[in-house]
Amino acid sequence: MSRGIPIVISAPSGCGKDTILEQLFKINDNLVYSVSATTRQPREGEKDGASYFFRTRSEFEKMIADNEVLEYTEYCGNYYGTPKKAVEEMLSAGKDVILKIEVEGAMNIKKIFSECVLIFVLPPSFTELERRLRKRGTETEETIASRIKQARAELEFADKFDYMIVNGDLDKAVRDVNTVILSEKMSSKRNAALLELVKNS
Amino acid sequence: MSRGIPIVISAPSGCGKDTILEQLFKINDNLVYSVSATTRQPREGEKDGASYFFRTRSEFEKMIADNEVLEYTEYCGNYYGTPKKAVEEMLSAGKDVILKIEVEGAMNIKKIFSECVLIFVLPPSFTELERRLRKRGTETEETIASRIKQARAELEFADKFDYMIVNGDLDKAVRDVNTVILSEKMSSKRNAALLELVKNS
Repeated sequence: MSRGIPIVISAPSGCGKDTILEQLFKINDNLVYSVSATTRQPREGEKDGASYFFRTRSEFEKMIADNEVLEYTEYCGNYYGTPKKAVEEMLSAGKDVILKIEVEGAMNIKKIFSECVLIFVLPPSFTELERRLRKRGTETEETIASRIKQARAELEFADKFDYMIVNGDLDKAVRDVNTVILSEKMSSKRNAALLELVKNS
Repeated sequence: MSRGIPIVISAPSGCGKDTILEQLFKINDNLVYSVSATTRQPREGEKDGASYFFRTRSEFEKMIADNEVLEYTEYCGNYYGTPKKAVEEMLSAGKDVILKIEVEGAMNIKKIFSECVLIFVLPPSFTELERRLRKRGTETEETIASRIKQARAELEFADKFDYMIVNGDLDKAVRDVNTVILSEKMSSKRNAALLELVKNS
Protein backbone atom coordinates (compact mmCIF):
# COMPACT_ATOMS: atom_id res chain seq x y z
CA MET A 1 0.00 0.00 0.00
CA SER A 2 1.33 3.42 -0.82
CA ARG A 3 1.73 6.04 1.87
CA GLY A 4 -1.00 8.66 2.19
CA ILE A 5 -0.54 12.35 1.52
CA PRO A 6 -0.62 15.05 4.20
CA ILE A 7 -3.00 17.77 2.97
CA VAL A 8 -3.05 21.14 4.66
CA ILE A 9 -6.09 23.35 4.30
CA SER A 10 -5.90 26.96 5.42
CA ALA A 11 -8.41 29.73 5.03
CA PRO A 12 -9.30 32.98 6.70
CA SER A 13 -12.23 32.86 9.12
CA GLY A 14 -15.53 33.02 7.22
CA CYS A 15 -14.23 31.33 4.05
CA GLY A 16 -16.17 28.17 4.85
CA LYS A 17 -13.38 25.67 5.34
CA ASP A 18 -15.26 23.67 8.00
CA THR A 19 -18.27 23.27 5.73
CA ILE A 20 -16.03 22.32 2.80
CA LEU A 21 -14.33 19.64 4.90
CA GLU A 22 -17.62 18.29 6.18
CA GLN A 23 -18.82 17.74 2.58
CA LEU A 24 -15.42 16.54 1.40
CA PHE A 25 -15.36 13.61 3.85
CA LYS A 26 -18.68 12.48 2.37
CA ILE A 27 -17.26 12.12 -1.15
CA ASN A 28 -13.73 10.85 -0.47
CA ASP A 29 -13.45 7.84 1.82
CA ASN A 30 -9.68 7.70 1.79
CA LEU A 31 -9.49 10.94 3.76
CA VAL A 32 -9.06 11.20 7.49
CA TYR A 33 -9.01 14.27 9.67
CA SER A 34 -6.11 15.12 11.91
CA VAL A 35 -7.56 16.43 15.13
CA SER A 36 -5.49 19.30 16.50
CA ALA A 37 -4.65 19.88 20.14
CA THR A 38 -5.37 23.23 21.74
CA THR A 39 -5.35 24.97 25.09
CA ARG A 40 -8.34 27.14 24.24
CA GLN A 41 -11.68 26.52 25.97
CA PRO A 42 -14.18 24.24 24.19
CA ARG A 43 -17.06 26.13 22.57
CA GLU A 44 -20.60 24.88 22.86
CA GLY A 45 -21.02 21.56 21.07
CA GLU A 46 -17.29 20.91 20.68
CA LYS A 47 -16.18 17.49 21.84
CA ASP A 48 -12.75 16.48 23.09
CA GLY A 49 -11.09 14.23 20.50
CA ALA A 50 -13.46 15.25 17.70
CA SER A 51 -13.22 19.04 17.27
CA TYR A 52 -9.94 19.27 19.16
CA PHE A 53 -7.98 17.53 21.85
CA PHE A 54 -8.53 20.03 24.66
CA ARG A 55 -5.46 20.23 26.86
CA THR A 56 -4.28 22.40 29.73
CA ARG A 57 -1.35 24.67 29.18
CA SER A 58 0.98 22.43 31.17
CA GLU A 59 -0.23 19.29 29.35
CA PHE A 60 0.41 21.03 26.03
CA GLU A 61 3.86 22.15 27.09
CA LYS A 62 4.69 18.59 28.11
CA MET A 63 3.64 17.40 24.60
CA ILE A 64 6.01 19.96 23.11
CA ALA A 65 8.83 18.93 25.45
CA ASP A 66 8.26 15.25 24.63
CA ASN A 67 8.38 16.00 20.87
CA GLU A 68 4.83 14.79 20.42
CA VAL A 69 3.62 17.64 18.21
CA LEU A 70 4.52 18.03 14.55
CA GLU A 71 4.14 21.80 14.75
CA TYR A 72 2.46 24.25 17.06
CA THR A 73 1.78 27.96 17.18
CA GLU A 74 0.42 30.34 19.74
CA TYR A 75 -2.60 32.29 18.50
CA CYS A 76 -4.66 34.74 20.56
CA GLY A 77 -2.96 33.50 23.72
CA ASN A 78 -3.65 29.80 23.13
CA TYR A 79 -1.55 26.95 21.82
CA TYR A 80 -2.67 25.07 18.71
CA GLY A 81 -0.71 22.06 17.53
CA THR A 82 -0.71 18.87 15.47
CA PRO A 83 -0.21 15.60 17.38
CA LYS A 84 2.52 13.68 15.59
CA LYS A 85 1.84 10.00 16.25
CA ALA A 86 -1.73 9.87 14.92
CA VAL A 87 -0.74 11.61 11.68
CA GLU A 88 2.17 9.25 11.10
CA GLU A 89 0.00 6.19 11.71
CA MET A 90 -2.72 7.35 9.33
CA LEU A 91 -0.21 8.17 6.57
CA SER A 92 1.45 4.76 6.98
CA ALA A 93 -1.98 3.15 6.68
CA GLY A 94 -2.31 4.79 3.26
CA LYS A 95 -4.84 7.39 4.34
CA ASP A 96 -4.67 10.97 3.08
CA VAL A 97 -4.63 13.15 6.15
CA ILE A 98 -6.37 16.52 6.24
CA LEU A 99 -4.71 19.04 8.52
CA LYS A 100 -6.73 22.20 9.11
CA ILE A 101 -4.10 24.69 10.14
CA GLU A 102 -3.60 28.44 10.03
CA VAL A 103 -1.07 29.84 7.58
CA GLU A 104 2.05 29.90 9.72
CA GLY A 105 1.46 26.35 10.91
CA ALA A 106 1.02 25.37 7.26
CA MET A 107 4.45 26.72 6.43
CA ASN A 108 5.90 24.67 9.30
CA ILE A 109 4.20 21.49 8.09
CA LYS A 110 5.72 21.97 4.64
CA LYS A 111 9.17 21.97 6.26
CA ILE A 112 8.44 18.67 8.02
CA PHE A 113 6.56 16.92 5.19
CA SER A 114 8.03 18.18 1.94
CA GLU A 115 5.55 15.90 0.14
CA CYS A 116 2.50 17.59 1.64
CA VAL A 117 -0.05 19.50 -0.41
CA LEU A 118 -1.00 22.99 0.72
CA ILE A 119 -4.43 24.28 -0.23
CA PHE A 120 -5.56 27.83 0.46
CA VAL A 121 -9.26 28.63 0.36
CA LEU A 122 -9.99 32.15 -0.86
CA PRO A 123 -13.20 34.14 -0.43
CA PRO A 124 -14.67 35.26 -3.78
CA SER A 125 -14.09 38.84 -2.58
CA PHE A 126 -13.68 40.81 0.63
CA THR A 127 -17.10 42.35 0.11
CA GLU A 128 -18.60 38.86 0.14
CA LEU A 129 -16.45 37.77 3.11
CA GLU A 130 -17.68 40.76 5.10
CA ARG A 131 -21.28 39.99 4.12
CA ARG A 132 -20.87 36.39 5.33
CA LEU A 133 -19.31 37.41 8.64
CA ARG A 134 -22.09 39.94 9.20
CA LYS A 135 -24.76 37.38 8.29
CA ARG A 136 -23.75 35.19 11.23
CA GLY A 137 -25.29 37.89 13.41
CA THR A 138 -23.10 36.92 16.33
CA GLU A 139 -20.16 39.21 15.75
CA THR A 140 -19.70 42.83 16.74
CA GLU A 141 -18.62 45.37 14.12
CA GLU A 142 -15.27 45.46 15.87
CA THR A 143 -14.81 41.68 15.58
CA ILE A 144 -15.82 41.78 11.92
CA ALA A 145 -13.29 44.51 11.21
CA SER A 146 -10.61 42.56 13.07
CA ARG A 147 -11.40 39.35 11.15
CA ILE A 148 -11.23 41.16 7.82
CA LYS A 149 -7.88 42.62 8.81
CA GLN A 150 -6.66 39.16 9.84
CA ALA A 151 -7.94 37.70 6.54
CA ARG A 152 -6.00 40.31 4.58
CA ALA A 153 -2.85 39.39 6.50
CA GLU A 154 -3.41 35.67 5.85
CA LEU A 155 -3.88 36.25 2.11
CA GLU A 156 -0.30 37.47 1.99
CA PHE A 157 0.70 33.82 2.47
CA ALA A 158 -1.63 32.41 -0.20
CA ASP A 159 0.96 32.27 -2.95
CA LYS A 160 3.16 30.06 -0.78
CA PHE A 161 0.46 27.40 -0.98
CA ASP A 162 0.39 24.86 -3.82
CA TYR A 163 -3.22 25.53 -4.79
CA MET A 164 -5.80 28.27 -4.40
CA ILE A 165 -9.48 27.44 -4.38
CA VAL A 166 -12.18 30.08 -4.38
CA ASN A 167 -15.18 29.28 -2.22
CA GLY A 168 -17.86 31.12 -4.17
CA ASP A 169 -20.11 28.11 -4.60
CA LEU A 170 -19.82 25.47 -1.85
CA ASP A 171 -20.41 22.41 -4.04
CA LYS A 172 -17.85 23.59 -6.56
CA ALA A 173 -15.30 24.34 -3.83
CA VAL A 174 -15.74 20.83 -2.40
CA ARG A 175 -15.29 19.26 -5.84
CA ASP A 176 -12.26 21.47 -6.47
CA VAL A 177 -10.51 20.41 -3.26
CA ASN A 178 -11.20 16.78 -4.09
CA THR A 179 -9.93 17.25 -7.66
CA VAL A 180 -6.65 18.59 -6.32
CA ILE A 181 -6.27 15.65 -3.92
CA LEU A 182 -7.07 13.04 -6.59
CA SER A 183 -4.72 14.71 -9.04
CA GLU A 184 -1.85 14.81 -6.55
CA LYS A 185 -2.21 11.04 -6.10
CA MET A 186 -1.18 10.72 -9.77
CA SER A 187 1.90 12.92 -9.60
CA SER A 188 5.03 11.12 -10.78
CA LYS A 189 6.95 11.93 -7.64
CA ARG A 190 4.42 9.90 -5.66
CA ASN A 191 4.41 6.96 -8.07
CA ALA A 192 7.96 5.68 -8.36
CA ALA A 193 6.85 2.30 -6.98
CA LEU A 194 3.99 2.03 -9.48
CA LEU A 195 6.37 2.74 -12.36
CA GLU A 196 8.74 0.01 -11.16
CA LEU A 197 5.83 -2.39 -10.93
CA VAL A 198 4.80 -1.73 -14.54
CA LYS A 199 8.42 -1.87 -15.75
CA ASN A 200 8.85 -5.29 -14.18
CA SER A 201 5.54 -6.65 -15.45
CA MET B 1 -9.01 35.92 -19.55
CA SER B 2 -6.20 33.80 -18.21
CA ARG B 3 -3.80 32.07 -20.55
CA GLY B 4 -4.42 28.40 -21.28
CA ILE B 5 -2.10 25.59 -20.28
CA PRO B 6 -0.05 23.51 -22.72
CA ILE B 7 -0.64 19.85 -21.86
CA VAL B 8 1.60 17.17 -23.28
CA ILE B 9 0.36 13.61 -23.44
CA SER B 10 2.80 10.83 -24.25
CA ALA B 11 2.31 7.10 -24.22
CA PRO B 12 3.80 4.04 -25.83
CA SER B 13 1.92 2.65 -28.82
CA GLY B 14 -1.00 0.50 -27.69
CA CYS B 15 -1.62 2.42 -24.43
CA GLY B 16 -4.79 3.95 -25.86
CA LYS B 17 -3.89 7.62 -25.88
CA ASP B 18 -5.94 8.38 -29.02
CA THR B 19 -9.06 6.84 -27.49
CA ILE B 20 -8.44 8.69 -24.21
CA LEU B 21 -8.17 12.00 -26.06
CA GLU B 22 -11.28 11.33 -28.13
CA GLN B 23 -13.31 10.85 -24.92
CA LEU B 24 -11.54 13.69 -23.11
CA PHE B 25 -12.64 16.28 -25.68
CA LYS B 26 -16.23 15.22 -25.04
CA ILE B 27 -16.08 16.08 -21.33
CA ASN B 28 -13.85 19.18 -21.32
CA ASP B 29 -14.85 21.95 -23.69
CA ASN B 30 -11.94 24.23 -22.85
CA LEU B 31 -9.52 21.81 -24.50
CA VAL B 32 -8.21 22.10 -28.03
CA TYR B 33 -5.95 19.75 -29.91
CA SER B 34 -2.68 20.88 -31.41
CA VAL B 35 -2.39 19.18 -34.80
CA SER B 36 1.19 18.10 -35.48
CA ALA B 37 2.96 18.37 -38.81
CA THR B 38 4.66 15.33 -40.30
CA THR B 39 6.40 14.15 -43.43
CA ARG B 40 5.07 10.60 -43.12
CA GLN B 41 2.48 9.33 -45.57
CA PRO B 42 -1.19 9.63 -44.53
CA ARG B 43 -2.75 6.31 -43.47
CA GLU B 44 -6.20 5.33 -44.61
CA GLY B 45 -8.81 7.69 -43.18
CA GLU B 46 -6.31 10.32 -42.04
CA LYS B 47 -7.14 13.86 -43.17
CA ASP B 48 -4.74 16.73 -43.67
CA GLY B 49 -5.29 19.32 -40.95
CA ALA B 50 -7.19 16.93 -38.67
CA SER B 51 -4.92 13.95 -37.94
CA TYR B 52 -1.79 15.77 -39.04
CA PHE B 53 -0.64 18.50 -41.35
CA PHE B 54 0.97 16.34 -44.04
CA ARG B 55 3.98 18.09 -45.49
CA THR B 56 6.78 17.18 -47.88
CA ARG B 57 10.29 16.96 -46.55
CA SER B 58 11.28 20.26 -48.14
CA GLU B 59 8.14 22.02 -46.84
CA PHE B 60 8.90 20.74 -43.34
CA GLU B 61 12.53 21.86 -43.55
CA LYS B 62 11.36 25.32 -44.61
CA MET B 63 9.10 25.44 -41.51
CA ILE B 64 12.12 24.59 -39.36
CA ALA B 65 14.28 27.21 -41.09
CA ASP B 66 11.53 29.84 -40.66
CA ASN B 67 11.26 29.03 -36.93
CA GLU B 68 7.65 27.96 -37.34
CA VAL B 69 7.84 24.78 -35.27
CA LEU B 70 7.98 24.72 -31.49
CA GLU B 71 9.86 21.43 -31.49
CA TYR B 72 10.45 18.62 -33.95
CA THR B 73 12.02 15.21 -33.97
CA GLU B 74 12.87 12.65 -36.60
CA TYR B 75 11.33 9.27 -35.92
CA CYS B 76 11.52 6.22 -38.20
CA GLY B 77 12.86 8.42 -40.99
CA ASN B 78 10.09 11.03 -40.82
CA TYR B 79 9.84 14.46 -39.28
CA TYR B 80 7.20 15.16 -36.63
CA GLY B 81 6.77 18.66 -35.25
CA THR B 82 4.50 21.12 -33.46
CA PRO B 83 3.45 24.22 -35.44
CA LYS B 84 4.15 27.22 -33.22
CA LYS B 85 1.64 29.89 -34.27
CA ALA B 86 -1.55 27.88 -33.76
CA VAL B 87 -0.47 26.78 -30.26
CA GLU B 88 0.37 30.34 -29.21
CA GLU B 89 -2.96 31.65 -30.51
CA MET B 90 -4.97 28.98 -28.69
CA LEU B 91 -3.12 29.55 -25.39
CA SER B 92 -3.66 33.31 -25.66
CA ALA B 93 -7.36 32.67 -26.24
CA GLY B 94 -7.43 30.89 -22.86
CA LYS B 95 -7.72 27.40 -24.30
CA ASP B 96 -5.82 24.48 -22.78
CA VAL B 97 -3.88 22.93 -25.62
CA ILE B 98 -3.32 19.19 -25.86
CA LEU B 99 -0.08 18.21 -27.54
CA LYS B 100 0.24 14.51 -28.34
CA ILE B 101 3.97 14.05 -28.61
CA GLU B 102 6.48 11.25 -28.14
CA VAL B 103 8.74 11.37 -25.12
CA GLU B 104 11.71 13.25 -26.51
CA GLY B 105 9.48 15.90 -28.04
CA ALA B 106 7.78 16.20 -24.65
CA MET B 107 11.11 16.98 -22.99
CA ASN B 108 11.70 19.69 -25.62
CA ILE B 109 8.29 21.25 -25.03
CA LYS B 110 9.02 21.48 -21.30
CA LYS B 111 12.11 23.55 -22.13
CA ILE B 112 10.02 25.96 -24.23
CA PHE B 113 6.93 26.14 -22.00
CA SER B 114 8.10 25.71 -18.43
CA GLU B 115 4.45 26.05 -17.37
CA CYS B 116 3.32 23.03 -19.38
CA VAL B 117 1.94 19.87 -17.81
CA LEU B 118 3.42 16.55 -18.87
CA ILE B 119 1.23 13.47 -18.60
CA PHE B 120 2.49 9.96 -19.28
CA VAL B 121 -0.01 7.20 -19.94
CA LEU B 122 1.14 3.81 -18.67
CA PRO B 123 -0.17 0.39 -19.65
CA PRO B 124 -1.43 -1.60 -16.64
CA SER B 125 1.32 -4.13 -17.44
CA PHE B 126 3.47 -5.28 -20.34
CA THR B 127 1.51 -8.53 -20.46
CA GLU B 128 -1.65 -6.51 -21.05
CA LEU B 129 0.06 -4.21 -23.56
CA GLU B 130 1.22 -7.23 -25.57
CA ARG B 131 -2.27 -8.71 -25.44
CA ARG B 132 -3.75 -5.44 -26.77
CA LEU B 133 -1.23 -5.16 -29.59
CA ARG B 134 -1.87 -8.80 -30.56
CA LYS B 135 -5.64 -8.29 -30.44
CA ARG B 136 -5.46 -5.72 -33.23
CA GLY B 137 -4.69 -8.69 -35.49
CA THR B 138 -2.86 -6.44 -37.92
CA GLU B 139 0.65 -6.66 -36.56
CA THR B 140 3.30 -9.30 -37.17
CA GLU B 141 5.03 -10.92 -34.21
CA GLU B 142 8.12 -8.97 -35.20
CA THR B 143 6.25 -5.64 -35.09
CA ILE B 144 4.73 -6.53 -31.73
CA ALA B 145 8.16 -7.37 -30.29
CA SER B 146 9.56 -4.13 -31.66
CA ARG B 147 6.69 -2.07 -30.19
CA ILE B 148 7.14 -3.69 -26.79
CA LYS B 149 10.85 -2.90 -26.92
CA GLN B 150 10.07 0.69 -27.90
CA ALA B 151 7.51 0.94 -25.08
CA ARG B 152 10.12 -0.23 -22.55
CA ALA B 153 12.52 2.45 -23.81
CA GLU B 154 9.82 5.14 -23.54
CA LEU B 155 8.97 4.13 -19.95
CA GLU B 156 12.48 5.15 -18.98
CA PHE B 157 11.30 8.76 -19.48
CA ALA B 158 8.08 8.40 -17.49
CA ASP B 159 9.47 9.79 -14.24
CA LYS B 160 10.42 13.01 -16.03
CA PHE B 161 6.71 13.64 -16.60
CA ASP B 162 4.60 15.49 -14.02
CA TYR B 163 1.91 12.83 -13.82
CA MET B 164 1.50 9.13 -14.58
CA ILE B 165 -1.89 7.73 -15.45
CA VAL B 166 -2.53 4.03 -15.85
CA ASN B 167 -4.90 3.13 -18.66
CA GLY B 168 -6.40 -0.04 -17.23
CA ASP B 169 -9.99 1.11 -17.50
CA LEU B 170 -10.66 3.64 -20.29
CA ASP B 171 -13.35 5.68 -18.49
CA LYS B 172 -11.19 5.98 -15.41
CA ALA B 173 -8.15 7.00 -17.45
CA VAL B 174 -10.19 9.73 -19.19
CA ARG B 175 -11.47 11.02 -15.85
CA ASP B 176 -7.94 10.89 -14.43
CA VAL B 177 -6.46 12.97 -17.25
CA ASN B 178 -9.26 15.50 -16.84
CA THR B 179 -8.76 15.59 -13.05
CA VAL B 180 -5.10 16.46 -13.55
CA ILE B 181 -5.95 19.24 -16.00
CA LEU B 182 -8.66 20.75 -13.76
CA SER B 183 -6.35 20.55 -10.74
CA GLU B 184 -3.49 22.27 -12.54
CA LYS B 185 -5.83 25.18 -13.32
CA MET B 186 -6.00 25.78 -9.54
CA SER B 187 -2.26 25.74 -8.88
CA SER B 188 -1.05 28.91 -7.18
CA LYS B 189 1.62 29.55 -9.76
CA ARG B 190 -1.12 29.92 -12.40
CA ASN B 191 -3.32 32.16 -10.26
CA ALA B 192 -1.28 35.20 -9.28
CA ALA B 193 -3.78 37.43 -11.11
CA LEU B 194 -6.76 35.87 -9.31
CA LEU B 195 -5.09 36.43 -5.94
CA GLU B 196 -4.48 40.11 -6.78
CA LEU B 197 -8.11 40.43 -7.81
CA VAL B 198 -9.33 39.07 -4.46
CA LYS B 199 -6.80 41.14 -2.52
CA ASN B 200 -8.07 44.30 -4.19
CA SER B 201 -11.74 43.46 -3.76
